[in-house]
Parts: sequence; structure tokens; C-alpha cells
Amino acid sequence: MSPGPLTPFFAPRGVLLVGASQDPTKLGYGLARNLVQSNYQGAVHFVNPRGGNLLGRPLHTRITDVPDPVDLAILLIPAPSVPVALGECGERGIHAAIIGAGGFRETGPDGAALEAECLRVAGAYEMRLMGPNCIGLLDTHLPLDATFLPPPGPPPGDVAFISHSGAICAAVIDWARGQGFGLSRLVSLGNQADVNETDVLAPVAADPFTRVLTLYLEGVSDGRRFITEASRAARQKPLIALKVGRFSSGQRAVASHTGALAGQEAAYDAAFRKAGVIRAETSEEMFDWGRALAWCPPPQGRAVAVLTNAGGPGVTAADALEAGGQRLAELSDATRLALQAILPPAASLHNPVDMLASASPEQFAACLKLLLADAGVDSALVILPPPPMYTAGAVAKALIPVIHNAEKPVVVALMGERLIQEAVEHFRAARVPEYRFPERAASALAVLAQRAEYLAAAGESDVSAVRPDNLHPEEARLVLEQFLPTAVIASAAVRSRSPQSRLPQPPPQLPQEAILRLLAAYGIDTLPIRLAHSAEEAVQIASELGFPATVKVASPDIPHKSDVNGVLLDLPDAQAVRGGFERVVQNARLARPQAEILGVHVQRMLPKGQDVIAGAVQDAQFGPLVMFGSGGVEVEGLKDVAFALAPLSRAEAEYLLEHTWAGRKLRGYRSLPPADREALLEVLLRLAQLAADFPELMEIEINPLRVLEVGGGAVALDVRARLG
Amino acid sequence: MSPGPLTPFFAPRGVLLVGASQDPTKLGYGLARNLVQSNYQGAVHFVNPRGGNLLGRPLHTRITDVPDPVDLAILLIPAPSVPVALGECGERGIHAAIIGAGGFRETGPDGAALEAECLRVAGAYEMRLMGPNCIGLLDTHLPLDATFLPPPGPPPGDVAFISHSGAICAAVIDWARGQGFGLSRLVSLGNQADVNETDVLAPVAADPFTRVLTLYLEGVSDGRRFITEASRAARQKPLIALKVGRFSSGQRAVASHTGALAGQEAAYDAAFRKAGVIRAETSEEMFDWGRALAWCPPPQGRAVAVLTNAGGPGVTAADALEAGGQRLAELSDATRLALQAILPPAASLHNPVDMLASASPEQFAACLKLLLADAGVDSALVILPPPPMYTAGAVAKALIPVIHNAEKPVVVALMGERLIQEAVEHFRAARVPEYRFPERAASALAVLAQRAEYLAAAGESDVSAVRPDNLHPEEARLVLEQFLPTAVIASAAVRSRSPQSRLPQPPPQLPQEAILRLLAAYGIDTLPIRLAHSAEEAVQIASELGFPATVKVASPDIPHKSDVNGVLLDLPDAQAVRGGFERVVQNARLARPQAEILGVHVQRMLPKGQDVIAGAVQDAQFGPLVMFGSGGVEVEGLKDVAFALAPLSRAEAEYLLEHTWAGRKLRGYRSLPPADREALLEVLLRLAQLAADFPELMEIEINPLRVLEVGGGAVALDVRARLG
Repeated sequence: MSPGPLTPFFAPRGVLLVGASQDPTKLGYGLARNLVQSNYQGAVHFVNPRGGNLLGRPLHTRITDVPDPVDLAILLIPAPSVPVALGECGERGIHAAIIGAGGFRETGPDGAALEAECLRVAGAYEMRLMGPNCIGLLDTHLPLDATFLPPPGPPPGDVAFISHSGAICAAVIDWARGQGFGLSRLVSLGNQADVNETDVLAPVAADPFTRVLTLYLEGVSDGRRFITEASRAARQKPLIALKVGRFSSGQRAVASHTGALAGQEAAYDAAFRKAGVIRAETSEEMFDWGRALAWCPPPQGRAVAVLTNAGGPGVTAADALEAGGQRLAELSDATRLALQAILPPAASLHNPVDMLASASPEQFAACLKLLLADAGVDSALVILPPPPMYTAGAVAKALIPVIHNAEKPVVVALMGERLIQEAVEHFRAARVPEYRFPERAASALAVLAQRAEYLAAAGESDVSAVRPDNLHPEEARLVLEQFLPTAVIASAAVRSRSPQSRLPQPPPQLPQEAILRLLAAYGIDTLPIRLAHSAEEAVQIASELGFPATVKVASPDIPHKSDVNGVLLDLPDAQAVRGGFERVVQNARLARPQAEILGVHVQRMLPKGQDVIAGAVQDAQFGPLVMFGSGGVEVEGLKDVAFALAPLSRAEAEYLLEHTWAGRKLRGYRSLPPADREALLEVLLRLAQLAADFPELMEIEINPLRVLEVGGGAVALDVRARLG
Repeated sequence: MSPGPLTPFFAPRGVLLVGASQDPTKLGYGLARNLVQSNYQGAVHFVNPRGGNLLGRPLHTRITDVPDPVDLAILLIPAPSVPVALGECGERGIHAAIIGAGGFRETGPDGAALEAECLRVAGAYEMRLMGPNCIGLLDTHLPLDATFLPPPGPPPGDVAFISHSGAICAAVIDWARGQGFGLSRLVSLGNQADVNETDVLAPVAADPFTRVLTLYLEGVSDGRRFITEASRAARQKPLIALKVGRFSSGQRAVASHTGALAGQEAAYDAAFRKAGVIRAETSEEMFDWGRALAWCPPPQGRAVAVLTNAGGPGVTAADALEAGGQRLAELSDATRLALQAILPPAASLHNPVDMLASASPEQFAACLKLLLADAGVDSALVILPPPPMYTAGAVAKALIPVIHNAEKPVVVALMGERLIQEAVEHFRAARVPEYRFPERAASALAVLAQRAEYLAAAGESDVSAVRPDNLHPEEARLVLEQFLPTAVIASAAVRSRSPQSRLPQPPPQLPQEAILRLLAAYGIDTLPIRLAHSAEEAVQIASELGFPATVKVASPDIPHKSDVNGVLLDLPDAQAVRGGFERVVQNARLARPQAEILGVHVQRMLPKGQDVIAGAVQDAQFGPLVMFGSGGVEVEGLKDVAFALAPLSRAEAEYLLEHTWAGRKLRGYRSLPPADREALLEVLLRLAQLAADFPELMEIEINPLRVLEVGGGAVALDVRARLG
């Protein structure tokens, strides 16, 4: 393991337990017992001011008395005593401490002050802290059990578990044992006063015994750093995260469709995708997938062969595979002929291959071998309800050598309970993932394919964000600096005007002229737009820009102009523009009597194209989050949008197009001609870069962005933005 | 049990096994053993031509020798011998037979002929058949085990299992035992030569020991009858169906958006919804839900209290509840005060109530009692990872009396494996549903709420389909009779013109004039439309109908006119109509040189409104299937559509509106004014009735259907239909 600041936690030469207790009902006894019984090879020392002996070792009365070597201190003492003990550990030259006790930040301001004091002391001695309020950590291979959980600990295995929740650690250990897989490491992070989920990714991923990292997350501490560290770890080992607290995000002030739709979960989805972290929806999925990722080779593709001795579950498996984006492999003629030679005439030789209920262990093994040898098969799912004529255990014994010799993943759906118990034991011992139902087995295969595709894509050139050419951030900076103070002051003013509102008011929009300068600085085409203060001026401007013309009411207080009938399109001549000016102003006054109306914006009307929305907001956790999708006024109703974190790679921009109907139909659809996808991709990359370069740009949204026919480009027709 | 044609299967006074065998490796032995060991109280007789004794009973050599009483024959003999044996059973006066053997329809034409012969013999003796190619049936309360499955059979319970797949029966029995629930009845239907899934619904629902029916379906035999019977059964007992073979439906010829989107699964979804059948996505869900429905009282609403001794799983549960459409109950002040008196200061008194890891069995029980007493709580989810200080078993024992005394449902998430085993046993014995993870427990509560809502709605007036007023089916009949032979002949002609096409060609569209007469007969408003054969005629018609006008090319070969730029809107005057005529004809000729062009349809242009799509197709299984949603040309891309089976109830029409964005925005959205929902609902009811009255109307689609502002009505702007 590479040396690093967390090394003393994961490879300590000696461990010191402060608060070791002779009372078997105390956690300080349980932890001492686990340290000794875990067969840890380093030195184990106990401290208790009362002195005496425990488990054949002396209880030192003072931390400073403990002899070398000692790298890691575990403090199981009441919260108020922790800062002093930490200081003594520091004096003793210890650079890593786990604080088990609760009574810190989670209890209120006094506890938070105590936690801050711990951090201060640790900082003075260059000491890293894990916890407080945590279960501790555990390594089954080192081995080291520095938790106080009741035995038995987890069997040694290849799945690491990193958890924000201490409470579920005992359940996960117990459940893992019952499900027949072991853990490599378990890290309970507690309050994360210092060490957090991001810090432990690299040292856990570097552990040679860990093949998969599973994460139980209640959030992340620093979104951008998490993405960096998780991406690095994900290229070495699969990471699966269960993010809880989906529905806990509060309301927030938004002034754009993008802001309204870009919730916390959209940001987490985008972040996990960017980092290559597989997101599980349930705890069960996380560990179902974990076993498969730990034990199976990666598949070359998504073509699955299903081998069964019963038709019904074969159909269920086929359904589940297709629902998960896999497909049934097309078997070669040679494979079918070879199967025919083995199986009874009534067997089904097409995938799913149904050997019938009479299938023997030898037939199971021979058929699976044939299927895995077929070049059109990427992975296999074997379905095994209790066979009427043989034991499931005998089938398992016959299958295991075939599975071990294959370079393709095989998962097993063992259906039943007692009649399959022997088979379960065989498969677990052989590290073959088995599941109770075909649906769960199919889901595991889909994740294997997802992981294989991630690894393949990670080697390609278009996955890194590329900074587009000809950006002029200095010009954008000038614009923003001009408006930033105004925006903030105006925002405060707006807030003070509406004390009755429960939601904080968003600061007002940037003026149109400023937004257009911003887009120009980042090379995003806009239509020339000019402000007319009178109907005659509007006619004058329209004549210069060309007919047909569009007029839109100009008001900093009206973000959605069409809501007040403040937009008129396709005005063919001077007379129409003159009338249009009066109409949009009048409509706006009627709808929003309080709004300040600056005049009317005049533009030339563009050729037809496909109108989309492209926007970006600053997510509190992960920074600039880009949205793309179907635009217009119904964005929030249709919800045909996708998200990615800025800056974007080419592949991420393509993802946004492929995951929305607005994006897919750019290739043309029925009478709709193909549109300029390339120009749109370029706009997305540029908009994303703008949002990434200027975190003070709180929201920016182009709606509509008109994508013209191929070669025609993409033009922002209406834009709004605000600073924060 | 009420007398009925299937009574001999479910309440036989005596059973006869033909093919009983002394050889313990034969199925004929296994079945004889099960009959005897199942403790069946009626007469049991064995037949084997070789004679002798078996299990202390004589082996009769001939069926006719068997003494009274005997109501049910089970035939476990080779397929070719079955028809003769059936004849003998008939002679013996037996009116029910189970045919276990395979070798019938599933093996090809010869087997199908044999199966037909069985049916013929059965018909001659008024005998009902179950199978062939099935496991048989089993009733744990009668009791009767007429299967050949290896023991042990399932423990007695309240879940009935009806299965098209015989192979999964053994797995389900074994799995049920492992999961701690029993079965009341198991029915394996096999080839369904006679008795099918629909036939057994009433007798199984009438069983007093059955509290829930679970169905493993590969399809249904007669869609409409299934809906009728399942509706009747669902009002007595919950029905849960797992329908497999989702992705097996082949391509078919369609000529409308409705046809393209109305796949087999949309029809099954609509049918299950209409019948009140709960659809499970996985086998695991079906039985997870089955236990909860069998054991819990119905909740009064969707407000759930979560009680936990660990924060993390509480959050997971909250997520899962909200994802499933439940909500966290708001606890009353009184409840919170009472909880405070019991719990330590650091406990969380807000839902989820986190008692902390130290929670004792007494605290669990007292807190649950308080939560269930709160009027704002409809159901409760208790989360129990292995408690560090107590055993999970002790907690279970304390909780069970509270749960039994409550009139609200309580489910338990027991997290772990070995440390919770004792608790598992207690809960199972007490018939309290327990699940390994909070997500599965939350899903069970959601289904309980769904069932309660179904029962409440089933008592309301608007759930029955009501025939709208002022329909003129006789007029519609005239129109259809005029075109039916032409359509069929033309269809044949089209097919013969395109032999290279793999898909069968749909028959051509009905002429516009005919479709408009159809709609008029069913009281659906249309815009007057007239066919112009020349530009001058078009101008003449437009002048009569009023400007602005719309022109559309008229061709039986061009179903989607906008695909060929064959539509021009908002033509303000005679000159524009004249030019428009030439343009749409020219565009159509360019795009489809082979198409027959009849002229141009002229209409007046309607006021603005909300344009939607409403269509109906005849589903092969369930008959008329209505679609509603976002219209225009992008229907198939946006997929903002919902389905229901015709004829519709008012509630079903409302469902279509609530489950689409197109429907929801009818109430108004931003600048979009509210539209005439009432008029739209009326159109949907009428269109559905038209499709239900005329099965020969293969597809009909109004796109767009313009819903005007409130009070303005809804007008069909473009319609196409074809016969089949």
C-alpha cells in the first residue's frame, strides 16, 4: 500500500484502545475482545485509568505509558474526555484516531463545539480522525477488527463496505454472512469531523483483497472532490453506491425551468455517472451486484444465453433481461445441433434453452459448456428450480467446473429454499453468484455489462471534457463584474420587499444585453436583438434587422415573457411591428401591473428548425449542472430533459441528446428534417464551459435554442440568466 | 362452496388415480403417496391394469371396478392411453379429470390431435378437464394433495397460487416454506385444453381459507371473460398477477400512432387495472405483497409512521415510501410528547421516529402503540436491525401483541440474517409480514394502500362504464357495412402489390366522409370538411365555410398527411386557398408518386385550444383499447399517452387525463388557459363506445382533437380509421 495520510488506519503496526473495560456488558470490553480475537498481528495495547489486566494484557493507566509500536488509537470514552485524550495521543506520537463515542455534533451546539475542539487538537498534532459517533473499522485480511460489534464478524471476502450509517453495519455483516459473501473492509464514518467518504476511496480501492467497493451514502462532503476521487477509484475497482435521503431536499428559490427541474437527485445521478459509480436503488441490489462484480469476469457484450430446466422461469428471465437492456443471444447453428445431440426431442434449442424437467447434472454441464463456447454468447444465466429427478446440489457440482473454466460471466437463479440449500452452499463456496429469482440474476448480469462498457469507454478519447476553442472568458468576466454587485443588492432589495414569502426570492435577471455579450464571449450564436423604447423605434430597428420580425416585451421582472402574452412572432411588415409593440406592452401591463417595463426587444424571425432548451445551474454540492431537452413553455410538464455535470466531454454531450426525445429527433423524424446536431453539441459544450468557468453565474437558460437544418447552426432565441 | 361445474375438482367426495405405481421412482407412486399422506378425508382409489396393492389399498385393474364415491379422476398414464381412459371415467360417471402427462399440444400436430380427442371424449360425458401437461392441484385445508411433487408439501396458509407454469410450482412451495408463509390452494393449469385461468378464479376466490390469489400467467385465454371474472373475484379477495412473456409479442401491421403504441403490455396493464388485479413485476414482489395482503387490515390512507432504532435505515425507508406514493405521517403534538416521555433526549421524535440503538423491547412496543393510536397515522413500518443491547427476538415478542391489537397494518423490516432468526420465527408464527430490507417492506405497505383504495373506489358510482346519450349505432352500422367489403378487398389488393414487404400491409383508410359520418353518429364534433377537386372549387368551399381556411391533400394512400407537407393552415383569403390547393397536391405527388390523389379537403380554421390525440384499436386479446395523450406528429417519440379498455367509466376517462401531461395541462398551465375537460371526457367516452360497439373498426384515431377553452367543446380536426 502506498504511504499516505490514512495509512495508520489501514496498516497500523500497533493499536491502542483507550477505554478498554473489564465489564463484558461495556463496548470497551467488546472492542478489546474483537481486537484480540481478530488475530491482528500487530501490537495491541489497552488503556484504563483504573489499571489491572484484560484478556491477558495489562491495562495501562496512561496513554503516554504505552510502549512502541503504536500507530492507531481507538477512543471509547465519554465525549467530554475525548479532547484531552487526543492531546495525549498526539504527545505520544500517534497520527490516527478513531472516536467511537456519540455526543458530538449530532446532539446540538455544545456537541458541535466539542467536535471542533477535537479537530483543533488533532490539527495541532497532524493527527487524522475517524468519527466521532462511529462503529470503527474492520479488515478481514490484515486482519483487524476495531469495532465493538458482537461476534461473529464477517467472513473474509472481497466486498468493501463504506458507510455513513453505523447502525446498518451490524445488519450488513450479518446479512452478508447469510447471503454467503464476505467483506474485505468495513469503514464506519460517523460524523466525519475529519475523514470522510471521499478520503477513504483511494486507500480502500488500493487494498489488493478488495474487488468491489460498496458505499452507503447520506450525501457527499465535497462534490467535485468526490467525483475526482471516485473516478480514479472506479477505474481500478467497481464502485456501487446507495444514496439515501432522496426525498429530503428542501425547496429552493429558482427562476428558470432548469433550476426547477435540476433537483438534488438529478445532480447525484449526473455525478455518479461522471465518476463511473454504479447507483443502486436498494440495499439488496447493492449487494446482489457486488457479488457478481467481485466474482465474474466482464462480459464482451449484452447477448445472454439462458439455460433452464423449466419453461416458465425461462420466460421470466427473458423478460427481465430485456427490461434491463440485455438481449437474448442468437445461438449459432453449430450450437443448436450440438444441443440437439444431447437433449430430448421436445427440448427447446432456441434461447432460452429449455432442457425440460428431466435434465441431468451432466446435461446441465454439457449444455452450459456449449452455450459459453458460442461466439454469439457474452454471458449466461442458468435457472435451476429443484429438479424432480436429481438434487440441485448435484447439478451445482457439475456446473461449477464449467463456470470456473469460462471467461464469460455465469450467474445462477436457484429457485426454492430447502431443496436447493446444498446447491447454494456449493455455489457460494465456488464464488458463483446465485440468486433466488431469475429477475435478480438478470439484474446482476446487466450491471456486469454496464461495468464492462464503462471500462471500455474509459479508454476512449472523447470521455474527457475538452475546452472548446475561441472562448473569451476575460470578456465574460467584464460583463459579470459589471452586474455582480447590482444583482446581489437588488436581490437583497427584492427579499426585503416580500417578507411574507416563505421562499427566498431569486435575485433579478441579468439584462438581455449583458447575457448576449456573455454568450458571444463563449461563441454561442444569438440573434441580434435591440431594445426599442417606442413603437416607431421598433419599426426602425425591424427595418434594419429585416422582416419578418419578432417583438418581446423587455422587463427585468418578467422572466417568462410568453406567460404574459409578451411575445409576438412572424410580424411581416412595419405596420404589424407598430401594432405589436403596443400589444405586448399592454399585455404585460395588464398581467403584471407592478413590473418595470423597459420597452420591447426586436429581432428578426429565424427560419424554422427544432427548438430545444439548454441551461445550467450551480448545484450546491456538485457545481455546474447542465440540462438539455424539449423546450418551450411546457418544459416542466413534459420533463423530457437530461442532466450532466459541466464541463462536458463530447460523450456526455451525446448522452444528453440520446436520453431525450428532443435530442433523438434531431436526426429527423417523419416530416421533421434532420437538424444540426453538431452545432447543438458545440453549444452544449460552450454553455457548460461558461457555467464551469463562472460559479457566480447561478442560472443560465437558453429557451428556445433553435437548431437549424444541417449546416445551419444553432441560435439562441431567448436567454435568461441570473447571478448569485 | 356453491355448486358449479368445477366443484368435483375442489370438493371431491372420492378421488381415483389412474396409473398408480408400486415403483417409488415413478410419478404414479409419488401421487398415490401424496393422496394418502395428505390426510384427504374422502375415498382414495388406485387403478393399475396389473393389479396388486399399494399403500395398503387394492390396485383395481379397471376404472369401472372402482366403488362409489368417486368425483375426480387423476390420469398419470402415457398420452396415447388418455382418451380411452377418459371414456371409461365418463362411463363410470366421473365429471372431472386431471391429465398429468405431457405429449399433447406442446409437442406438435400429433399431440394437438390427441388433445382434441380428449376434449371430444370429455364433451361426450360432460366431463371437465384440467391439463394435460400439469402438476395437478393441491388444497392444504380440505386437505388434498393431488400432485406428484416430492414432499414436504406447502404448510397450510392463506395464499392461493394459480400457475400456467408447472415447473415453478415446486420452487414456489419450497420458497413459501422458507419465507414462512403457507399456501391454501395450488392449481397447475398445464395446456388448458379445457379449464383455464379464468375458470378457476371464482372457485378459488370462494374458498374460505384463501385470503389472496396469486397468478403466474403466460397470457389469458379470453381477455374479456378474464376481466369479468377477475373483477368479480377482486371484489372478494385481492388478486396479484405476474404476467410473463412481456417481450415476446411480435411485430404487427399498424397504420396509426395508437396502433403503434398500443402493445400487448399496454393492453394487459389496462385489463388488470380494469379488473382490479394488482400487477407484480417480479415473483418476489408477488409473494412479498401476498403475505401483506393476506395478513394485514386495509389502511385508511397513505400516511405511514416509521419506527426505527437506527437512523440510516429510517432514511432508506422514507425514500422508499415516498417513491411508492406513500407519505410520512405528520405526528400530532400529543404523540410527540408521549414519545418524549419514553425516549432518551437524543431520540428523534419526528417521523421517522428514531429511538436510538439503545431501544428496549418495551420501548419498541410502547412507541409503536403510540404511533398506531395517532389519528394521522394510517400504517406503520418498524425497522429492526439486530439491536446491540437486546435480542431481536425479545423485540418481536414485545411488538406482536401491539400489532395484533391494532386495526392498522404494520410491517417489519428485519435487517440481518442469523441475529434476527428468532425474531423472524416469532413474526411468521404471528402472521406479521417481515422483510429483509426497508424497501421491500415499504413496497408491501404501498400495495395495501392500493388495495384499500381499490375497494373504496369499487363502491363509488363512476366506476361502471356508462353508455353516453344520443348515440346512433344504426347510422354507424350503415357506414361500416358500406365500406367493409371494399376495405377487405382493397386490403388484399394492397398486399398483392407489395409481395416483398415482410409485414402484412394494413388495409387502406376509410374515406374521410365516412369517418366523419361515424363520428357524427356517436356525437363527436368535427369541423365540416369538403372535398375540392380543383383549386377553384376549393376557393368556393372556403368562402362558404369561412376564412381563415385549412387545406389538406385527400388520398387513401397517405395516412399521415403532414409527412408529405400535405397540410396548410390559416390561409387568410381566396388567393391563399387557390395557391394552397396547388401546393399540397404538388407536395404529395413529389413525396408519393404512386399515391392516388382525390383532391383537397377544405375546412375552416378553428380557434386555438389544446391539441391532443384520442384513438382506439382492437386488441387481439382484450378488444377495444383506448389511447389518449399528447398528439401531433411526435406522439410516438414523446410517448405521453395512457391506455384504458373500452367501454370506459367516467373514472377510467379521468385516469387517462391524470396520467398524461396532455391531460393534466387541460386545467391550464402558465399562459395556457384551461380547456374544456368535460367536453374531452365526453369525446373519450363516446369514442370508446364506438370502438366497443364495432369490433370491425380496427383502428380509429383523432389527431389532433382540439380541446377549446372551457365551454367551447372539443372538435376532431383530423381523423383516420380502418376496418379489419
